[in-house]
Amino acid sequence: MSTGKLVQANGRLYKRSDRPVVVVCVDGSEPDYMEVAMKAGRMPWLKSLLDSGVNTNRIAESVVPSFTNPNNLSIVSGCPPRYHGICGNYFYNQETGEEELMNAPSYYRAKTIFSSYQDAGAKVAVVTAKDKLRLLLGHGLDYSQGNAICFSAEKSDLANMADNGIENVNDFVGMPVPSVYSADLSEFVFAAGVKLLQTVRPEIMYLSTTDFIQHKYAPEEEGALAFYEMMDKYWAQLDELGAVLTLTADHGMNPKHDADGKPNVLYLQDLFDEWYGKAEARVILPITDPYVVHHGALGSFATAYLPKGQSVDEAIKRLSEVDGVELAISGPAGCAMLELPEDRMGDIIIISERHLALGTSEERHDLSALDRPLRTHGGITEQKVPFISNRPMSGIPSDMRLRNFDAFYCSVNYAE
Amino acid sequence: MSTGKLVQANGRLYKRSDRPVVVVCVDGSEPDYMEVAMKAGRMPWLKSLLDSGVNTNRIAESVVPSFTNPNNLSIVSGCPPRYHGICGNYFYNQETGEEELMNAPSYYRAKTIFSSYQDAGAKVAVVTAKDKLRLLLGHGLDYSQGNAICFSAEKSDLANMADNGIENVNDFVGMPVPSVYSADLSEFVFAAGVKLLQTVRPEIMYLSTTDFIQHKYAPEEEGALAFYEMMDKYWAQLDELGAVLTLTADHGMNPKHDADGKPNVLYLQDLFDEWYGKAEARVILPITDPYVVHHGALGSFATAYLPKGQSVDEAIKRLSEVDGVELAISGPAGCAMLELPEDRMGDIIIISERHLALGTSEERHDLSALDRPLRTHGGITEQKVPFISNRPMSGIPSDMRLRNFDAFYCSVNYAE
Repeated sequence: MSTGKLVQANGRLYKRSDRPVVVVCVDGSEPDYMEVAMKAGRMPWLKSLLDSGVNTNRIAESVVPSFTNPNNLSIVSGCPPRYHGICGNYFYNQETGEEELMNAPSYYRAKTIFSSYQDAGAKVAVVTAKDKLRLLLGHGLDYSQGNAICFSAEKSDLANMADNGIENVNDFVGMPVPSVYSADLSEFVFAAGVKLLQTVRPEIMYLSTTDFIQHKYAPEEEGALAFYEMMDKYWAQLDELGAVLTLTADHGMNPKHDADGKPNVLYLQDLFDEWYGKAEARVILPITDPYVVHHGALGSFATAYLPKGQSVDEAIKRLSEVDGVELAISGPAGCAMLELPEDRMGDIIIISERHLALGTSEERHDLSALDRPLRTHGGITEQKVPFISNRPMSGIPSDMRLRNFDAFYCSVNYAE
Repeated sequence: MSTGKLVQANGRLYKRSDRPVVVVCVDGSEPDYMEVAMKAGRMPWLKSLLDSGVNTNRIAESVVPSFTNPNNLSIVSGCPPRYHGICGNYFYNQETGEEELMNAPSYYRAKTIFSSYQDAGAKVAVVTAKDKLRLLLGHGLDYSQGNAICFSAEKSDLANMADNGIENVNDFVGMPVPSVYSADLSEFVFAAGVKLLQTVRPEIMYLSTTDFIQHKYAPEEEGALAFYEMMDKYWAQLDELGAVLTLTADHGMNPKHDADGKPNVLYLQDLFDEWYGKAEARVILPITDPYVVHHGALGSFATAYLPKGQSVDEAIKRLSEVDGVELAISGPAGCAMLELPEDRMGDIIIISERHLALGTSEERHDLSALDRPLRTHGGITEQKVPFISNRPMSGIPSDMRLRNFDAFYCSVNYAE
């Protein structure tokens, strides 16, 4: 049902259309993955799209910290974390004095594009791989109206009408519940997306995978090639079903290990302890979450709270001289630059270089579960992501800095 | 009452204190005004403060469009218009197809610092010169709790407990209702501020003047000097009463006329009519409001909606070649750069140079009421404003881009 009306979400206007719009977020999809898989002949649909010359094949920039939650929430909000509040998995709550996981919907401060479309009477659907994102992405959806669906592959067997707007998902998709550490978890998302497009045909749909594969495998490894080959088949189906299909990612991915495969880590808490005394400063790694098997809670982004009375300027000066620190910036300046909420960032924001990860104290990171050389993300060096659509979008102004969170905006407003 | 707790407003944290904090917004106070008045010996309190060496005398940047409402709302929100929605006095509502005044509280999308402090149990007070700002600035205040006051000098005789949290204001201040086009309108604001500090002693207070004088007089003219002399006397009293006092402005002010005193105007609607045909494009001047006597609705900021199908890139290219255009940028890029809400800006944002104003069609501007050579604002050239406090704020990180809307943030978090 196209009303010709506009939907407003977070200060932007979105057109409505009879053509369903599907945005795919391929978690951790450093642009190389698709390039290499296409060259290897493993992504025939994508290759043919890009060869046809009518497509749009762009590079966009993700939110920094280039982590999963800040970017997924930005994509479904059409705006950066400063507006919606989700700037990591983990933060130090200055109001309570506690370190907290930021995974409950109450941490989210905006209104999603989905919720706004639902208010306008549109059918909407969201499918995620991991359940940790589901509640946040479904913020504000009203399942009692029968036009909103939001569930995860991980907990697909628990989906029900009251909490997800759908039930018997495994029968519907024709797949059992996949393991949380598997490529199947992401495949389930696409299989569900195809089914939903064939049946419910939502006006806007979001499909979000997990980066288990990208953390494990470099682009040229078979584990990665097979994964991209799998996705290509589903994208061809979504395209065939008439959707405007836009592919982007939450962040890139880089090796952060030395030649021996040992993680390359700057332990910031240890550094601050040396400078200010044991536990006087507090280092927070916003990548921290209960799923640490594939990255050991190591990423390229950290924030720190200094001991009372210590100069931020001084600390920035010292940090800037540390090898491997790409950026050390004050909380207010970093939040303005990266569009982050100041109340959830510390006195200083620290970003490391391409091949270096940031840790707290060496003793606090259990790296025994890392079965492969560390590949991770979080920094500016993982900000470049694909932004590919099956429709041309020639109306995008050329002075616009394309962001991954423009995926819905561009798909509904500019896709031809 | 100091609780030691933090107040959260729009993603920033604000400390509480026993010391009252007063932020003064001197409408249209191009930095020259204070400099010239001090040199002329007309601002002894300010001069002595700046000479003492313990003060903070900085220059901050306002929001662009450098207009009154976007900046006043940014100052009381601690964030730019992209978050709170108020990006001008006037806009084109794409959802309704109507041009509208943006003066009702329903256009505001955030929660003010005042409302957040009130929720935390603090006493708050807001006094504005013109009534047009009062409802917006008072957004979310609950006058029934007896700890919030918000009124205008212009309608001081109508102030009542239910709508303003105060009554009998003219008796309280000891001044009759001033004329809306007068220096007295602003003097009333300060007289009220001093009385409030002596009696109610609000934890945070905002005093906002009108730029009637600055539109009329250049810094060296007696009309301006007398105005700054008047303000200096009141600031001395606020300081004497123990307040942390921070002085800033909503925007600067520049002459925009030729040597003969004739307004120097680029009429954009006429230009677009020539390019695209009569009334095919739509030019919006966000300065437009019912009070046009002192600027004739002429400022240095405009936005335009192009006819359907016309290329934004092409229009930007043509505009950039027009003499006096400082910046022509697409709506999405301009809104990202200037932190404005996209749904209230057009396809293109146009900003003119220091001595040029932008108009719609020449026939639509009645300049007969301009009794002095045009002085106005709206552009990047009016973005520099004073940021002066009576307390040092040495903790402000040196990499922070200081904005006028950091006035409360810096006053409560960094004032020593």
